[in-house]
Amino acid sequence: MQNIDKDTTVLFSYWRSSCSWRVRIALALKKIKFEYKAIHLLKEGGQQKSDDYSKLNPMKVVPTLVIDGNVLGQSLAILEYLEETRPEVPLLPKSAADRAIVRQMMQIIGSDIQPLQNLKVLQEIGTLAGDDKKGAWAKKWIANGFDGLEKLLVKHSGKYCFGDQITFIDLCLPAQVYNANRFNVDMTPYPTISRISDALSQLPEFEFAAPHNQPDVEC
Amino acid sequence: MQNIDKDTTVLFSYWRSSCSWRVRIALALKKIKFEYKAIHLLKEGGQQKSDDYSKLNPMKVVPTLVIDGNVLGQSLAILEYLEETRPEVPLLPKSAADRAIVRQMMQIIGSDIQPLQNLKVLQEIGTLAGDDKKGAWAKKWIANGFDGLEKLLVKHSGKYCFGDQITFIDLCLPAQVYNANRFNVDMTPYPTISRISDALSQLPEFEFAAPHNQPDVEC
Repeated sequence: MQNIDKDTTVLFSYWRSSCSWRVRIALALKKIKFEYKAIHLLKEGGQQKSDDYSKLNPMKVVPTLVIDGNVLGQSLAILEYLEETRPEVPLLPKSAADRAIVRQMMQIIGSDIQPLQNLKVLQEIGTLAGDDKKGAWAKKWIANGFDGLEKLLVKHSGKYCFGDQITFIDLCLPAQVYNANRFNVDMTPYPTISRISDALSQLPEFEFAAPHNQPDVEC
Repeated sequence: MQNIDKDTTVLFSYWRSSCSWRVRIALALKKIKFEYKAIHLLKEGGQQKSDDYSKLNPMKVVPTLVIDGNVLGQSLAILEYLEETRPEVPLLPKSAADRAIVRQMMQIIGSDIQPLQNLKVLQEIGTLAGDDKKGAWAKKWIANGFDGLEKLLVKHSGKYCFGDQITFIDLCLPAQVYNANRFNVDMTPYPTISRISDALSQLPEFEFAAPHNQPDVEC
């Protein structure tokens, strides 16, 4: 990876990673062709911890996107980069106030939910309190975040999370709903989240980016 | 708060909140005058949970910024809004690739560190595993994030986190270093983080925004 070809776009991804999933949707919507390189988060003690990969991504997490000769980490930073360099299919509204609402909803998932129930945090909860505590921990934080997000969506959603335009927050929703289902979160209090999640799953770009369509899928 | 005055800027903040602190620095650097409204995260079972406040911020967290007639939540979304509407004192570099690096470093603190060691998560760790486990939990995630951040800073820092310009990531650093000290994180492996943190603390805008200078400071 020392010599990065400016014309090659490579996504280092794991099929079930929420953060990789967000970027896969963005690449599909913006019609950016890319090579998929699977990084298995569990095999070999976690391939993301290898010397080669950690040089690309010092946090040793997925995704990493190699694009335009740059090596980019952190999914939400990657979304902003793609929006700035490929604005033809916009994923943010036009006014600063509207963009702030979209980013507020995005950060609820990106800061207040996902980080608290990802693989390595759940592994740590298991070590600290027992594996039987992992599910309740994940459920608690997903419900806490969805409580706030649902209220904002009631106010701002149309067909999708912010009116009828697909924006950054829509890119973050499918993985979070997928995890909510994995952890048996009761979705009854979240009819707006559920409705939008269903609508998004009908779109070909979202289907393309879903875990079951990735080359490294396992079940 | 039903009638929001377009000319009034109000920050709902808690003196020791990392996320409030980031926004206070941005307001100072961009020379935006604001009214400070203290929200005590512990008194009365947490004032952020009151009916009035949760209407402003459905996640029931600080900060909330009322500005230009808008009610904005999530600190990193607020930073982007301020940058888009008040670009005179820029807090992002010019090129998309450079901006992506700044946002990558910012999200390491915003997603991979801060959410895992904030007040409500530590309270939950205490309930789950005992109060004596809270410190080690916080230390673990701060060190994990600083390990990655230090490597990126070695590559990209100058006087500050990204060259010699103050950017979003610099706004997130002071609170995280403050928390690292609170939890007795060994800072020896992070000479670049320490150096930049010291440099930032010399700047009047950063001094203005520090917890000990807030009206609701307690010690």
